[in-house]
Amino acid sequence: MTQAPAAHPTGTAPRRRDPRYDLLFEPIRIGPKVMKNRFYQVPQCTGAGHPRPGSNAGHRAVKAEGGWGGLSTESCSIHPEVNQSTSTNTTMWDEGDVINHRHMVDEVHKWGALAGVELGAGGVKDNLWSRYVAAAFDRFPSGGTPKVYTYAATEEDIARIMQMYEDAARRAKDAGFDILYIHGAAGVFPVHALSRHFNRRTDGYGGSFENRARFWVEALERLKKVAGDDCAVATRISIDDLAGPWGLELRDEGLAFVEYITKLGLVDMWDIIIGGSGEDMWGEDSGPSRFYKSNHQSPWNAEVKRIAKVPVVGVGRFTEPDEMVRVIRSGQLDIIGAARPSIADPWLPRKIDEGRVEDICECIGCNACVSRFNLNNMIICTQNPTALEEYRRGWHPERFEPTPNPEMVLVVGAGPSGLECARVLGKRGYEVHLVEAKEQLGGHLRDVVRLPGLAEWGRVYDYRESQIARMPNVTVMRGTGLVTAEDILDYGARRVVLATGARWAGNGLGASGPDTIPGIDAALDHFVTPEQFFAGKAIGERVVVLDSDGYFMAISIAEVLADQGKQVTLVTHLETVAPMTALTLEGYNLRRMLREKGIKERTGHWVDKVDKAGNGVEVVLYDRYRDGSRRTTTPQTGVYPRRLGDAVEILDCDSVILCTSREAKTELYDGVMALKPRWQDAGLETVVRSGDCLAPRYLADAIFDGHRIAREFESVNPERPKAIIRERQIWGHETFPKLGDHVV
Amino acid sequence: MTQAPAAHPTGTAPRRRDPRYDLLFEPIRIGPKVMKNRFYQVPQCTGAGHPRPGSNAGHRAVKAEGGWGGLSTESCSIHPEVNQSTSTNTTMWDEGDVINHRHMVDEVHKWGALAGVELGAGGVKDNLWSRYVAAAFDRFPSGGTPKVYTYAATEEDIARIMQMYEDAARRAKDAGFDILYIHGAAGVFPVHALSRHFNRRTDGYGGSFENRARFWVEALERLKKVAGDDCAVATRISIDDLAGPWGLELRDEGLAFVEYITKLGLVDMWDIIIGGSGEDMWGEDSGPSRFYKSNHQSPWNAEVKRIAKVPVVGVGRFTEPDEMVRVIRSGQLDIIGAARPSIADPWLPRKIDEGRVEDICECIGCNACVSRFNLNNMIICTQNPTALEEYRRGWHPERFEPTPNPEMVLVVGAGPSGLECARVLGKRGYEVHLVEAKEQLGGHLRDVVRLPGLAEWGRVYDYRESQIARMPNVTVMRGTGLVTAEDILDYGARRVVLATGARWAGNGLGASGPDTIPGIDAALDHFVTPEQFFAGKAIGERVVVLDSDGYFMAISIAEVLADQGKQVTLVTHLETVAPMTALTLEGYNLRRMLREKGIKERTGHWVDKVDKAGNGVEVVLYDRYRDGSRRTTTPQTGVYPRRLGDAVEILDCDSVILCTSREAKTELYDGVMALKPRWQDAGLETVVRSGDCLAPRYLADAIFDGHRIAREFESVNPERPKAIIRERQIWGHETFPKLGDHVV
Repeated sequence: MTQAPAAHPTGTAPRRRDPRYDLLFEPIRIGPKVMKNRFYQVPQCTGAGHPRPGSNAGHRAVKAEGGWGGLSTESCSIHPEVNQSTSTNTTMWDEGDVINHRHMVDEVHKWGALAGVELGAGGVKDNLWSRYVAAAFDRFPSGGTPKVYTYAATEEDIARIMQMYEDAARRAKDAGFDILYIHGAAGVFPVHALSRHFNRRTDGYGGSFENRARFWVEALERLKKVAGDDCAVATRISIDDLAGPWGLELRDEGLAFVEYITKLGLVDMWDIIIGGSGEDMWGEDSGPSRFYKSNHQSPWNAEVKRIAKVPVVGVGRFTEPDEMVRVIRSGQLDIIGAARPSIADPWLPRKIDEGRVEDICECIGCNACVSRFNLNNMIICTQNPTALEEYRRGWHPERFEPTPNPEMVLVVGAGPSGLECARVLGKRGYEVHLVEAKEQLGGHLRDVVRLPGLAEWGRVYDYRESQIARMPNVTVMRGTGLVTAEDILDYGARRVVLATGARWAGNGLGASGPDTIPGIDAALDHFVTPEQFFAGKAIGERVVVLDSDGYFMAISIAEVLADQGKQVTLVTHLETVAPMTALTLEGYNLRRMLREKGIKERTGHWVDKVDKAGNGVEVVLYDRYRDGSRRTTTPQTGVYPRRLGDAVEILDCDSVILCTSREAKTELYDGVMALKPRWQDAGLETVVRSGDCLAPRYLADAIFDGHRIAREFESVNPERPKAIIRERQIWGHETFPKLGDHVV
Repeated sequence: MTQAPAAHPTGTAPRRRDPRYDLLFEPIRIGPKVMKNRFYQVPQCTGAGHPRPGSNAGHRAVKAEGGWGGLSTESCSIHPEVNQSTSTNTTMWDEGDVINHRHMVDEVHKWGALAGVELGAGGVKDNLWSRYVAAAFDRFPSGGTPKVYTYAATEEDIARIMQMYEDAARRAKDAGFDILYIHGAAGVFPVHALSRHFNRRTDGYGGSFENRARFWVEALERLKKVAGDDCAVATRISIDDLAGPWGLELRDEGLAFVEYITKLGLVDMWDIIIGGSGEDMWGEDSGPSRFYKSNHQSPWNAEVKRIAKVPVVGVGRFTEPDEMVRVIRSGQLDIIGAARPSIADPWLPRKIDEGRVEDICECIGCNACVSRFNLNNMIICTQNPTALEEYRRGWHPERFEPTPNPEMVLVVGAGPSGLECARVLGKRGYEVHLVEAKEQLGGHLRDVVRLPGLAEWGRVYDYRESQIARMPNVTVMRGTGLVTAEDILDYGARRVVLATGARWAGNGLGASGPDTIPGIDAALDHFVTPEQFFAGKAIGERVVVLDSDGYFMAISIAEVLADQGKQVTLVTHLETVAPMTALTLEGYNLRRMLREKGIKERTGHWVDKVDKAGNGVEVVLYDRYRDGSRRTTTPQTGVYPRRLGDAVEILDCDSVILCTSREAKTELYDGVMALKPRWQDAGLETVVRSGDCLAPRYLADAIFDGHRIAREFESVNPERPKAIIRERQIWGHETFPKLGDHVV
């Protein structure tokens, strides 16, 4: 597809970089390589993994173009025996992988950046693909994955693993990588080897610190051997597993290890993270903004930097250049590492370099990216809808195809989806009229950011509002009140986008398809929808929060009410509270919060009906596993009958919060469609629904929808996505193995 | 790889089919096609899906060779808009899919069988791949997947969907399929359209029965149009969703729909299942043997058959030819449908035809296959280790490469892994000496089958024992007592396989890596391991069952004890009880069982220590989310501290059942390795560990390991798997799309 040159919102030529930030653009030597600046995309999962090399190449390519001085693969498995199913990662198993990786490397080199590969192996994980058991330094069951056990690797096994590292490193070098990593976090081999807890060997690889460090040392030596004078060698290390005796501790052996490896001169760069082997896995490093502020890792990074003799890179969800400068000046880090901020704005370094700091699209720390990886899909990004769409949809975060027809487009509703749609239509050169009923832009997000820890989510509308403000071809009309169907016909636009959003149901809709719940009516004093909660509707002392939404709203409102001293019980039909927050790595802290604040939980139950009772109400619960008789009249084939009777449970309370489900606001759309006979006279041709007003969805997907519609605005029906590149083999390709071949 | 001709265990020429079974081999007309017999593999997921056409082709191919008269794809998505992420299925989206499917079809045709394709679309599911929202016949949230909402399809949308069906059907016909299906179960479009509950439209597609049936009718008409006189048209229908008002009911509108479609003459075959839209999804049709006996669907099938004018196929986990004959004779079905039995024995029909009924390897109904599909991996089979390995490992369920060196091999331990290893080594022509300490073969499974509902699992050792009994080259030595390292050296075998299995830990090992639990010692009266339970160790009235295993053992023992009238509390560190049983579709009934029998649950908690208290013990629990202080001394970065103190909870009881984890029995292996200096004189060269004695694993994986080792026995170290064919694209293939292309 033809592409416009990178346009700057101001339309003017690039400004000069602010000299305050020059430090960030000083080159730095990493072993035999020189990185052009201090911006480094650390190992970051894409979810594309080995099956989708095009998506990986496309994703890293726009970042290299965006000024990142170095970019690394995610964890890259060195051998099928230590594959990382059930998650989808990259591999360095064979010549095919070399071919596929080379394209990513070439894209990175095209922009003068360095390419790193994080060679990963081991961990107490199931190898569902290869069906082989996990090796470790002792025999034990996984604490995290039931039925997964390790066997104690013999010295022969370890020698074989070392050869795997060397072979993978050689392939990586063939693919053109500049920095060869040993992955040393999240409980992989080197981590378990170093751990007193997990390594209980009595041979040369166990016991003393030196013995426990031996595995890591030898793996690094293998990489050194392959690297020669051509490549740098690095290691990522979780310098403190934050799991006490369970893992490495900074002041126990963490720093000692850095000193030891430094003495041996085995690494050219340290890549520091924290956490990883404990219960939270990566949640304490890729910390959600709800709980972790930018640069919360600084105490750890600073101590490593103090003793390291080679460059130290670390992360901290850095988005502000002033903070980046402070971090380097203060001797905390040499290189600004980033994963999520590089997803949210692939052009972050370039924007600083070009004096366009105000154009930086900042990560909000919602971890939507992580959630999709955890669902075995490609990552998505709330702030950057083009993430992982660079290849398959041909989208570029900073380039937009100019419209062939710069006509006026009316966008109704300036929530996340409408804002994004208007922004992209503006970038494409349309004359955009964005109409918002309220004075403030941002829609329901304006309320969401008032919830505990979610303030940073406001960056979604702040960024878009400020971008739009600098587009002469985008006009924003605020406080217009509700737009009517007649208004739209009168407006004279040929194409209209409706982004009217969704509202929370006031009738109990949710958890059971189209059913509402008898007795629930948000018009009554006892019931409170999230909108009513934000509007300040009175809430009694004994509160039941109904959650069939499963994400942040119910648990957040419960937290606010508990902080007000109310007695709160959270009821959900789901087996666990707010399961989505487990995928975003917010789950552990949220569960601790529930306990800290004494919020009661009733999981696996839902509401049969709600009855008035004196001044309050009775919430009649049924057991999700015993609700058959109310749902079926046919004989059950199950051994255990589903009877409601003995499962009933009644909660007395004063107020019921209704986080059951959302409903698309379709009134305007329905109204306009009803007037279809008059469209032609009014010059109206197309009305497109964007985001939640078609169907409620995750914030990231609603923004994505607005973006996609603007990109594909000329198609017959922009509500339907255009075709996507599929990445998959097609039988017949010469490299497609025939029965009996063995390519691994 | 060269392959031996299919050998019969008896070594004799094929016997004649028993005339009693002739009925099963009568051809039957399906529209314009004739199926050669009455054996039909109904739509069955492989987990290989569209990314792995080779695995799909290989899997169906051995079944076609094994005599199945017809084989169908799993649910095959008709368009990316209605893709079925997060699960992995096949697709019929483009020419590449046609190419890939054709190979499966050709393999099927090679054996004179018919190939069916189940065209599937819709359902209230997330389309994570295409990132589009789900269409339905009303707007509502999914009851199963949080944050998934439908939009109400317009007549325009429905017309587009109809075109998708037609286009997909045309591609399917191009690929050579004989039977074109409309998928009508598990809550896809046609099912929601027909449902009063999910379809609340007031237009021509809603309201009256005829209107709600219209979508299904029109979809079938599209298929008829494509099929012409060349292909048959079928539909799979869940004739009773077992969800009462939530879905179709047999005597309400289920049979009425069959009559209606019959009147219109739109289908050439009915494929009947039950359940699917309710909470259990497919668990009431693909019923685990624990709860559902063979042919439990007969009441539903029989009623459909009574009114159908075309062949009716249905399932019932049929493995016995006498039952199959009864089922057809009694007018319950015309065609014996099978999914799981065809996985367990791809050659089931052929074995009946050849008079080798005793060679049938019967499905045990454990649903290990389903569990891997639910984990987004390729299915596995406890009974048939070659399932989905036909292509990538080049394995054939009935063909075995003859050994180049038919020497004597000693196999120690006749549990599942040892039995399978001995069976396959025998098939390959080795002189196998199988030594078992006990009188009975089967290892720990002999105890497992005594648990509620698990009797059918005994088929694992019954099949292998009977097979081995008919191999003159396999000698079984029973009741030998424990074999010692000296015994092995004295035995004179050059190569030895150890399959000594695993035992349950008696020290609390589990849930926390290598840690044991203070105070726990199975030597004391209060503690009972599963082995001690089966051996009849005395158990008090108040019982705590500790489960960090997460599968069937703890919950089954809890059930037995509850049936004895004891007060049972099940404690697990996991967030839900026995999560593995949710993957095997046993979860719902097991949860109902817990409630029925009053078994208390304590999830998300684990054991800090166990103290003696009077005649009983105190089990001191900690909250998994509040256990930090006992585990870490470093400052936590989490907002909410992990303190143990206020999380402590004490359970008083008389007995504690220890289902915490298993330990490989390594004594013999360690003993033999210690004598390595004497190996050469003893003529011993290789000692291979098979199954749980290397690392405990699922039953299916332990059997797989024994099978794999026997297949790869000549490799340098048979403990290491040989290479596997990877199915994935390699950049550069001409059909590999370039940036900007859109191939869907």
